[in-house]
Amino acid sequence: EGNFLGTSYMERILRKCRIQNQLVRECLAECLGVYILILFGCGSVAQVTTTRNQKGEYLSINLGFALGVTLGVYVSRGVSGAHLNPAVSLSLCALGRHSWFKLPFYIFFQLLGAFLAAATVALQYYEAIQSYSGGELTVSGPNATAGIFCTFPDEYLSLLGGFIDQVIGTAALLLCILALGDSGQGSIPEGVQPVLVGAVVMVIGVSMGSNSGYALNPARDFGPRLFTYIAGWGVDVFTAGGGWWWVPLVAPCVGALLGTLVYELMIEVHHDPGLKHPSYRPSGLIRWASERSNTQ
Amino acid sequence: EGNFLGTSYMERILRKCRIQNQLVRECLAECLGVYILILFGCGSVAQVTTTRNQKGEYLSINLGFALGVTLGVYVSRGVSGAHLNPAVSLSLCALGRHSWFKLPFYIFFQLLGAFLAAATVALQYYEAIQSYSGGELTVSGPNATAGIFCTFPDEYLSLLGGFIDQVIGTAALLLCILALGDSGQGSIPEGVQPVLVGAVVMVIGVSMGSNSGYALNPARDFGPRLFTYIAGWGVDVFTAGGGWWWVPLVAPCVGALLGTLVYELMIEVHHDPGLKHPSYRPSGLIRWASERSNTQ
Amino acid sequence: EGNFLGTSYMERILRKCRIQNQLVRECLAECLGVYILILFGCGSVAQVTTTRNQKGEYLSINLGFALGVTLGVYVSRGVSGAHLNPAVSLSLCALGRHSWFKLPFYIFFQLLGAFLAAATVALQYYEAIQSYSGGELTVSGPNATAGIFCTFPDEYLSLLGGFIDQVIGTAALLLCILALGDSGQGSIPEGVQPVLVGAVVMVIGVSMGSNSGYALNPARDFGPRLFTYIAGWGVDVFTAGGGWWWVPLVAPCVGALLGTLVYELMIEVHHDPGLKHPSYRPSGLIRWASERSNTQ
Amino acid sequence: EGNFLGTSYMERILRKCRIQNQLVRECLAECLGVYILILFGCGSVAQVTTTRNQKGEYLSINLGFALGVTLGVYVSRGVSGAHLNPAVSLSLCALGRHSWFKLPFYIFFQLLGAFLAAATVALQYYEAIQSYSGGELTVSGPNATAGIFCTFPDEYLSLLGGFIDQVIGTAALLLCILALGDSGQGSIPEGVQPVLVGAVVMVIGVSMGSNSGYALNPARDFGPRLFTYIAGWGVDVFTAGGGWWWVPLVAPCVGALLGTLVYELMIEVHHDPGLKHPSYRPSGLIRWASERSNTQ
Repeated sequence: EGNFLGTSYMERILRKCRIQNQLVRECLAECLGVYILILFGCGSVAQVTTTRNQKGEYLSINLGFALGVTLGVYVSRGVSGAHLNPAVSLSLCALGRHSWFKLPFYIFFQLLGAFLAAATVALQYYEAIQSYSGGELTVSGPNATAGIFCTFPDEYLSLLGGFIDQVIGTAALLLCILALGDSGQGSIPEGVQPVLVGAVVMVIGVSMGSNSGYALNPARDFGPRLFTYIAGWGVDVFTAGGGWWWVPLVAPCVGALLGTLVYELMIEVHHDPGLKHPSYRPSGLIRWASERSNTQ
Repeated sequence: EGNFLGTSYMERILRKCRIQNQLVRECLAECLGVYILILFGCGSVAQVTTTRNQKGEYLSINLGFALGVTLGVYVSRGVSGAHLNPAVSLSLCALGRHSWFKLPFYIFFQLLGAFLAAATVALQYYEAIQSYSGGELTVSGPNATAGIFCTFPDEYLSLLGGFIDQVIGTAALLLCILALGDSGQGSIPEGVQPVLVGAVVMVIGVSMGSNSGYALNPARDFGPRLFTYIAGWGVDVFTAGGGWWWVPLVAPCVGALLGTLVYELMIEVHHDPGLKHPSYRPSGLIRWASERSNTQ
Repeated sequence: EGNFLGTSYMERILRKCRIQNQLVRECLAECLGVYILILFGCGSVAQVTTTRNQKGEYLSINLGFALGVTLGVYVSRGVSGAHLNPAVSLSLCALGRHSWFKLPFYIFFQLLGAFLAAATVALQYYEAIQSYSGGELTVSGPNATAGIFCTFPDEYLSLLGGFIDQVIGTAALLLCILALGDSGQGSIPEGVQPVLVGAVVMVIGVSMGSNSGYALNPARDFGPRLFTYIAGWGVDVFTAGGGWWWVPLVAPCVGALLGTLVYELMIEVHHDPGLKHPSYRPSGLIRWASERSNTQ
Repeated sequence: EGNFLGTSYMERILRKCRIQNQLVRECLAECLGVYILILFGCGSVAQVTTTRNQKGEYLSINLGFALGVTLGVYVSRGVSGAHLNPAVSLSLCALGRHSWFKLPFYIFFQLLGAFLAAATVALQYYEAIQSYSGGELTVSGPNATAGIFCTFPDEYLSLLGGFIDQVIGTAALLLCILALGDSGQGSIPEGVQPVLVGAVVMVIGVSMGSNSGYALNPARDFGPRLFTYIAGWGVDVFTAGGGWWWVPLVAPCVGALLGTLVYELMIEVHHDPGLKHPSYRPSGLIRWASERSNTQ
C-alpha cells in the first residue's frame, strides 16, 4: 500500500539542487515572496482595468494585494522571515532585529521579484492590454495601462500631499505588524499571522488607497516601474505626476521608521522586561472571562 | 551569524523611555487602539466620499471599521484589555470586571485617540477634501464632508428613532462580545478573538448602518465631532440632524447595559457555577462528533 | 490593584436569577441564537431594501446571514449545541444524536427567537420602512417590504422548482456541516467552527440565493412571516407566490435528511470504526508534507 | 438524560453500508469533494448570470469557487487528501507523494463529481435558465448560458494566450498550495488549511479570472462541459472559442508541474534535510518577537 510512495525520480533530481548558503536561500525566498505578492496584486489591477470594472471593482484590487501579501508571507516566512518590503527590512535593521549586512541583498532580490512578477502580469495580460489600449502603451489618458504596474498620484495631489499620504500609510502598516508580532500582547497561532498581515494591507487599501494607490513598499513600486520603462511605456512612468516615482521609494522608509517608533514608545517598550506573556492580565473585551475566574 | 543581532542603539534608547505606571500604560494603549480604529474607519469613509464611490463602496466602509476594530484590539489587548469604547468600559464596570476609578481615565484617552485619528485623516485627505468640496467644509448638501468624521441621521429619522437604533445596535454588539468572551460557551483560540470582534462590527454595519451610521461608541463619534467643530466645519456639526450629537453619546451606554443584561440573564448566569468548561457537552452543530464518541 | 474587582452588586443580583433546569437553559440559548441570526440577517435585507442598494448590495445580505449564523452559533453553542434550525434538529434526532423529546421545545423556541427578531428589525427600521414604502405595507410591487422578513419565490419559479431549490440548498448545508463536525476528517480548532458554518451559509447565499431567497430553515422563514401577518402586511404573506409559505417549512426538512443521508453513505459510515483520528493519513493538498516525512 | 442518545435505527442501518476497500472510499470522497466545489462554483455563476448581476457580481463568483474549494476540501481531506483536481493529482504523483496506480481512478471520479454537480446546478436553475434564455440553450450571444458550466476565452484571446494564462494560473495555484503544506515554512493549524486553499483560489479569481475564467482544473472544466454537450447546448461547447475545450485540460497539467518545479527549486529543496521545523528561525514580519527573546 505504501510501496509506491518511496522517493520519486523527480525528488531525487531535485535534491541535487540543494543550496547550502543561508543568505542565498533567504534571497530566493524574498524574491519568490515578492513575486507572489505582485503577481496577484498587479494582476488584480490588470483584471479590473482591462475589463473596465466588468470583472472586478476596487475591492477586488484590495483583495488582490491583501491576499497577495498573505500568500507571499506563506511562501517565504520559514526561510527569510517574509520581509517582502525594503521599508520593513530597514525598520528591522534599525531595531537590531535584522542584519545591516544582509539589507542590500534583501532589497535587491525584493526588487527582482517585483520586476519578474510585473513581466509575468504583462505576459498574461498581453492580449488584454493590447485590446484595451488599442496597442498603445500610455501612462495617462482614458486607455492608460501603466497604472496596472506602478502607482501614480490622483490629479489633485501635490508631491508633499503624496509624501504625507505614504508616510501615514506605511506608519500604520508597521504599527499594526509590530503589534501582531509583539508577544507582550498575547499569542497568535503562528500559522494565522500571515492572514492578519494581509488584513492590515486590506484595511489600508480600503481606507488609504485613493490618494496615490497605497504603494507602501519601494520594491512593490519601483520593480514594476522599471519593467514598464523597459517594456515600452517609456520615460513617462518617471516624469508623470510631477516626477512622482521617488515618493514611493523614500516616503515608505520614513513612514516605517515613524510607525516603529510610535509603537515602541507607546506600547512595546513598557512591557515588563523579560516577560513574554505578562502575569498581569487586564480585563476587557478579550480577557474578561478569564478575569472573572480569578475574582470568584 | 547571530552576532549582529545584539541589542541595537535604537533599542537601548527606547528602553530608557519605559513607563512604570500601569494606569498610564493602559491609557496609552486605549488611546492608540482607538486611534487605529478611527484612522482606518473614518479613512474608509473619506476614501468612499471623496472618490464619489469610484474607489470603494458601502462595504468598504464596513470593512474599514471592522478591520479597524480588529487591529485596534490587537494593538491594545495585552495592555489595557482593548475596551476602545466608553460604553464597553461602563458595562465592564457595572459587571464588576473593571475599576470604576479607572473609568474616567479610559474614557478621556479613548476620546483623545479618536480626536487625533480624525486629525490624521483630515491631514491625509486634506487635498482630496479640498478638491471634493471645492474648499468649503459643510455638514450637509451635495459636497458635505462632515460625515467623514462623525455620524448624522438619515433624513427620515427622528431623534427617538435614532436613539432606538443606537440602543439596539450597541446591545447587539455587547451581547455578541460577551458570548465571544464567555468561557462557558467553549474556548476560542486567544489570538483569533480580535478577528471575531471585528466580524461583529462588520455585521452590525451591514445590517444596522443605514439609519444613522452605527456609531455604537461615544468616543468614536464625539472625538472626531469635536475635531470637525474646531477644524472649520463649525457649530453645524452639533446642530445638524435636530441636535443629533448627544444621541451617539447616551444611547450606546444604554444599549451596552441592556445587551449585557440580556446576555447575562439568558445565558451566562445559568452556567454551572465554578465551571469554565462545563462537563455537560450538548450535541448539535458544533459538538455532535464528540457526542457520538460518547454514545458508541 | 485587584480589590475593586470583587463581585459587583449587579453580578450578585444576576446570580439569583440562575435557572437550574437544563432544558429551559437550552431553549433560552436556541431562542437567543436564532434571534441574533435573524436580527442581523433580516436587518441586512432591511438596510439594502430601504436604501435602494445605496448602503449595501446582495453581498451585504449574504454577509448578514452568514455572520448572523456565525454569531448565533457563538451565542448558543456551549448551552444548546447551536442547532438554530428545526431541520438541523430533526436530522440530529434521526441520527440518534439528539433527543426526540426535546425536539418540539427546540422548534418552538427557535420560532420564538425568529419572531422576536423580526419585531426588533421592524422597530429599528420603522421610520425607514415608512419612508421607503410611503406608509403602505405591501408584499409585492415596487415598494414591497415583506421580503425584508420572509422569503418569496422569483416570478419565474413554480412551487415544484422552489421545492427542489430548497431541498438542494438544505442538503448542501447539512452535507457541509456534517463534514465540518466529522472528526474522521481531521480536527478543526473548536472556536473556529462557527466561522466555517457561517462560510457555508455565505456560499449558499452566493450560489443558491436567487431563486427563492435561501431560507433553508423553517424557523428563519415562518417566525418572521407570522410577525408580518400580525404586524400589518396581512394575509398576502401567505397567499403570495402561489401559496409559497409552506415550501420553506417542508422542503428544508426533506433536504436536511437527504444531505445527511448522502454524507453518511458516501463518507462518514466508511471511516474505520472506533477511530476518531484515523491512522491512515492520505497524501494530498492538506497532508502531503506530513506524508513525505513518513516516506523518507 | 443520555439514554435516548443511544445508537439510532438510522445509524444502525447506515453501518451496514460500510465499504472496506480503501480506494473506493477515496474515490467516493474525491467525487463528493469535486461535487461540492462545482455545485457552489457553477451555482454562483448561474446566480449572477440569470439575475443579470442583480443578485451577485464578479466577486460573488470568486467567492463561490473559493468557498466551494474550501468546503470540497473539508468534505474529503480526511479520506482522499482532497486533491479535487487532476492536475494536482498528477503533480503529487510526479513528486512521488501519490500512487500512479490510483491516478486514473482519482481523475475519473473527479470528473464524475463535476458532471453530477453540473447536472444539479442545471436542475436547480432550470426555470431560471429557461426564463433568462427564452428557452434556447446557447453558447454565445446575449443570452448565452453555457458559460455557467464551463469556461470560454474572452474575444480578444488567442489559443496561445489562453494556454499561457492557464499555465501561469495553475502554476501560481500549485506554488501557493505547496507553500501552505510545507512544514519547513512553519506550522499551520490543520483545520485552517482548507480556508487558505480557498483563499488561493479567491485571489487567482480576482487577479487572473478575466482572460478565460480561471478553470485551473481539467475536471472542473471538462465534466460540466460534457454535461452541457449532452443536456442540449450541443457541439458548440467544443467548437466555441476556436476549439478552446482542450486548453483547460492540458494547460493546467503543464502549469501544475511548472509551479511544483519552481517551488521545489526555489524553496523546499533547500530546507535542512530531516528537519520539519528548522532550528534556524529567521527574524522578520512573523518571527521577530521570538527572535528578540533569543537576543536579550
